[in-house]
Amino acid sequence: MRKILIALFFTLFANWSQAQQLERIEPMFWWVGMNNPKLQLLVHGTDIATLDVQLNYPGVKLVKVNKVENPNYLFLDLEIAAETKPGKFPIAFTKGDKKKLQYVYELKKRENGPSRIQGVTSKDLIYLLMPDRFANGDPKNDVIKGMRETKLNRDSMYYRHGGDIQGLINKLDYLKDLGVTAIWMTPEIENDMPLVSYHGYAATDHYKIDPRYGTLDLYKTYVDKAHQKGLKIVKDIVHNHMGTGHWFYNDMPMKDWVNQWPVYTQTSYRDEPVMDPHVSEADKKKMLDGWFVPSMPDFNQRNPFVQNYITQNHIWWVEYAGIDGLRLDTYPYNDPDYMKDWAQKIKAEFPTLSIFGETLVHTAAAQAFFTGGNTVNRGFDTELPGITDAVIKNAIYEALNGKTGWTDGIFRLYSTLAQDFLYQDADRNVIFMDNHDMSRFYSMVNEDIDKFKSGIALLLTMRGIPQLYYGTEILMKNYSNPDGLVRSDFPGGWPSDKSDKFIESGRTAQENEAFNFVKTLANYRKSNTALQTGKLMQYVPENGMYTYFRYQPEGGKTVMVIVNVDDQAKSLNTSRFAERIEKAVSATNVITKERLDNIKSITVPAKTTLVLELN
Amino acid sequence: MRKILIALFFTLFANWSQAQQLERIEPMFWWVGMNNPKLQLLVHGTDIATLDVQLNYPGVKLVKVNKVENPNYLFLDLEIAAETKPGKFPIAFTKGDKKKLQYVYELKKRENGPSRIQGVTSKDLIYLLMPDRFANGDPKNDVIKGMRETKLNRDSMYYRHGGDIQGLINKLDYLKDLGVTAIWMTPEIENDMPLVSYHGYAATDHYKIDPRYGTLDLYKTYVDKAHQKGLKIVKDIVHNHMGTGHWFYNDMPMKDWVNQWPVYTQTSYRDEPVMDPHVSEADKKKMLDGWFVPSMPDFNQRNPFVQNYITQNHIWWVEYAGIDGLRLDTYPYNDPDYMKDWAQKIKAEFPTLSIFGETLVHTAAAQAFFTGGNTVNRGFDTELPGITDAVIKNAIYEALNGKTGWTDGIFRLYSTLAQDFLYQDADRNVIFMDNHDMSRFYSMVNEDIDKFKSGIALLLTMRGIPQLYYGTEILMKNYSNPDGLVRSDFPGGWPSDKSDKFIESGRTAQENEAFNFVKTLANYRKSNTALQTGKLMQYVPENGMYTYFRYQPEGGKTVMVIVNVDDQAKSLNTSRFAERIEKAVSATNVITKERLDNIKSITVPAKTTLVLELN
Repeated sequence: MRKILIALFFTLFANWSQAQQLERIEPMFWWVGMNNPKLQLLVHGTDIATLDVQLNYPGVKLVKVNKVENPNYLFLDLEIAAETKPGKFPIAFTKGDKKKLQYVYELKKRENGPSRIQGVTSKDLIYLLMPDRFANGDPKNDVIKGMRETKLNRDSMYYRHGGDIQGLINKLDYLKDLGVTAIWMTPEIENDMPLVSYHGYAATDHYKIDPRYGTLDLYKTYVDKAHQKGLKIVKDIVHNHMGTGHWFYNDMPMKDWVNQWPVYTQTSYRDEPVMDPHVSEADKKKMLDGWFVPSMPDFNQRNPFVQNYITQNHIWWVEYAGIDGLRLDTYPYNDPDYMKDWAQKIKAEFPTLSIFGETLVHTAAAQAFFTGGNTVNRGFDTELPGITDAVIKNAIYEALNGKTGWTDGIFRLYSTLAQDFLYQDADRNVIFMDNHDMSRFYSMVNEDIDKFKSGIALLLTMRGIPQLYYGTEILMKNYSNPDGLVRSDFPGGWPSDKSDKFIESGRTAQENEAFNFVKTLANYRKSNTALQTGKLMQYVPENGMYTYFRYQPEGGKTVMVIVNVDDQAKSLNTSRFAERIEKAVSATNVITKERLDNIKSITVPAKTTLVLELN
Repeated sequence: MRKILIALFFTLFANWSQAQQLERIEPMFWWVGMNNPKLQLLVHGTDIATLDVQLNYPGVKLVKVNKVENPNYLFLDLEIAAETKPGKFPIAFTKGDKKKLQYVYELKKRENGPSRIQGVTSKDLIYLLMPDRFANGDPKNDVIKGMRETKLNRDSMYYRHGGDIQGLINKLDYLKDLGVTAIWMTPEIENDMPLVSYHGYAATDHYKIDPRYGTLDLYKTYVDKAHQKGLKIVKDIVHNHMGTGHWFYNDMPMKDWVNQWPVYTQTSYRDEPVMDPHVSEADKKKMLDGWFVPSMPDFNQRNPFVQNYITQNHIWWVEYAGIDGLRLDTYPYNDPDYMKDWAQKIKAEFPTLSIFGETLVHTAAAQAFFTGGNTVNRGFDTELPGITDAVIKNAIYEALNGKTGWTDGIFRLYSTLAQDFLYQDADRNVIFMDNHDMSRFYSMVNEDIDKFKSGIALLLTMRGIPQLYYGTEILMKNYSNPDGLVRSDFPGGWPSDKSDKFIESGRTAQENEAFNFVKTLANYRKSNTALQTGKLMQYVPENGMYTYFRYQPEGGKTVMVIVNVDDQAKSLNTSRFAERIEKAVSATNVITKERLDNIKSITVPAKTTLVLELN
């Protein structure tokens, strides 16, 4: 499709004695009726800046032709009037009277439809997967000739394994059955890097699906099919950096397209300089402008051409595919002013889109610092709706692993939630037990199935947007260091796999126990608005037990959650919860369907999170 | 003085067939020219409510006579017009035409003077002491006949030891020499309790200095003498509770003068319910209305008579003695709405007064929640200027005791300071290494003199208001549990003491080393505005060393502080600090007076916080 769109008509008109060429214009098409009438086209081609530019289309005005350091670039500032009609028109590159090159630009009509850009909220359960490691639906695209990584090697965590978008499409029913309602796949745009290209965070083309995963058409098909099944789509985007293999890194528009240092300088990876009122400029610059790793050039986000390029790219993807949510990689490493401007522009185009940033920080205050509409940030509103809530994850681990003390264990979990006053809306926090950058949950609870279930019950009943990492439901395990095995293939995703854990018969009894636990609770959650959007009321833990409720003040179901992290069953007198239990006298265990006829006193088994629907 | 003021004229006029008596009116006198024209007098006396009240003084209006459940009380609402002249006037209690009782009320002229109500700020160094344990200046008041605690026993931490205000007055020069600029003594008002009455937080009379410490006159003398020597005064006040021996607890104006429970209910001691948006009313009530201990009845701060009583009492003390700062005990346990109202009223009367609340909580966010003008508290402004910063203390301990890790040790300290964005002004935080409720600093660093000095250097160069606990400067040690030895007597404060550590010759060589370290730095700090009120700039720790600067952007001195917590001396390349070192090439070690001629590279000894003045 792309090759058709980048119609290079230059052969017809070119004066062969001159070398100008047109490699690409990005965004390669756009839409009428966008909120922002401005559009900046990046034009790339040999000596393109030696040509003049002309276009003529009702409603479209070429406001400015920007020449930059590198003559292989032009940046065209367009303004598209509100009433402009969809259609195509030539952009002509001329020398004197002669038309040297031409690109037929298209302004499309914006799509609409109820399943487009729905937003991903606390009603959802997000399933995070790495496309190279989930399912291989098209072995023909496993290795693509001409790309820098030339081998497939499923025995190494750092080579490509062959998973792809078709594989994921084939498993949509599996996910739907599990109770998932949204899919977040790590970046699927081209990463034409010589090593660890499966990783996805080193883009080499911002407008291209990596050919090992599929095509732009297939990506749109994937989104549409998911939407048809009631599954939403989160796209994982990276503002901060690209890969050294990026086409424009190898022919940069200008020197300050990326953050330049006299000698290679790595970020400090510390979030503190971003928020610290006592920060030095040197530390702030190192954090924000230092490179993530040598293979990932760091965008200079104070460069307005970079700003336009990145922002438009994200708008393009959402509008093109109808994406429901964006996950912003390495959020604290980005320029705060740019990110605020980005968020304002994105939200202006897509008011229903959800956005959350990756914030692997260590306190609720630090997390809250990055959230928008908050009140902690000295008047600077980041405009970022949500963050990844690693602090809750750590607190849940502490609770499950039985640390005790005034501020430890279940008290840490209780106390962390009490700090929700820091957020405008903690329900926008994405909560999770693990992801591709950390040890797997099941390993972190020492492969204890009781603790595993207890944690899953917390994940699916807590405030926020729960996110499950692929394979957690079948007890995939391992540690992130040193061997990266947390990114293992989902067994059964490859035709040659010995067992297929996508189906019941391929799973062990214990794997089915885990799978069914997740499935039961995830599907229950789908239809329980108290768990989805209800209020949370929590009680100070007592006697090693922590109790909270999800409820709706206006009536509706009340779910009572009791966490016993001890190795012993315990009895809980419920009189102190009168405010929430109200007139309920009995309850149903959501997992076992058992009925508790009298809830004045409740026995909570060892290492268990009981989930009870009051009635 | 008090006995004179409470002039009981009733003998003159009383009809002896009737039982009315007048025990007291509080506040026993007041002032003209206060910001708030309203004054509510508590009148206590047998069957006083059976009498009518009359007064006649130009500018003073008796707006309302409030009768309450207990006929032994009247609450008189007065309004004092702005132009009212100082003077005395009778308040007459009548029955029909007959004047039964009379109290001569005085409205004084407000004092002024430059040493009154100066405020205690980051320019100061506060010295915290327990008056019973510091110095015994008047053995005659050690045991007071008729009071409930009848014994002196210096061998037990829980009996009285005999220290008093005269003892403290005698040691003012010692404190001044040490470099202290403000004194905070634990509560000195009457605690007529049968046990542990030295403790001070169980008031039995809000308008009386405990006779074991001295008199109201002596207290005023103490404040005046301190002011004359350039020492400021912090008064320790308790809003939340009183002692069971309190005169009005034993004849309560009304049942809901205190928080009543069907059975004795203790507070949960948890701050979370105060800030938690997910809190239950039950948990909030338990925290706020539960009693601190059985011997300390919990004021019902939603009762407007209680509110007036407490607020006026504090205004009375500040105005009476010219106090510079208030320390509010157990801040989170108080009713938030009342405390806000209290702070507004206090600040309206005394704009220059300093106020800080005790917040022994566990995160910077929780601390910041309680501070006024902050932005984390969902629009509720507590109006509390400062808090006791236990979080920094814990971080300093972690740093000194050598924990290491991404967020531990010196990183915890660095990271905690980075969270200062949470406060409106972190310079109002009172920072400290220990106090009367926790193990002593020297013990907590395993009696390691190097770590001790390193911590003191941090305390005296960090942002905030430093507070030193008595005896720290002479290496007093011990743990708070189980024996309360952190409240030992200051050796030399009693005539019979074997050694006198108030004087150089009474101290060991190591004690003098510690004393001189504190003295040198505290006195240096007195004249260094960069340390007092300068900005702080801190750098991400590297190679086990943490570096920060105190400086004034408008010029003036720059102090560089380098913390090496390792057991090895280390060399620090200072090129990354160019932003603050600017053109300085040399420095002076503030403690040793040594000159460093070249500060491009600085050697930092093991376990040392270097304090360097750049030049």
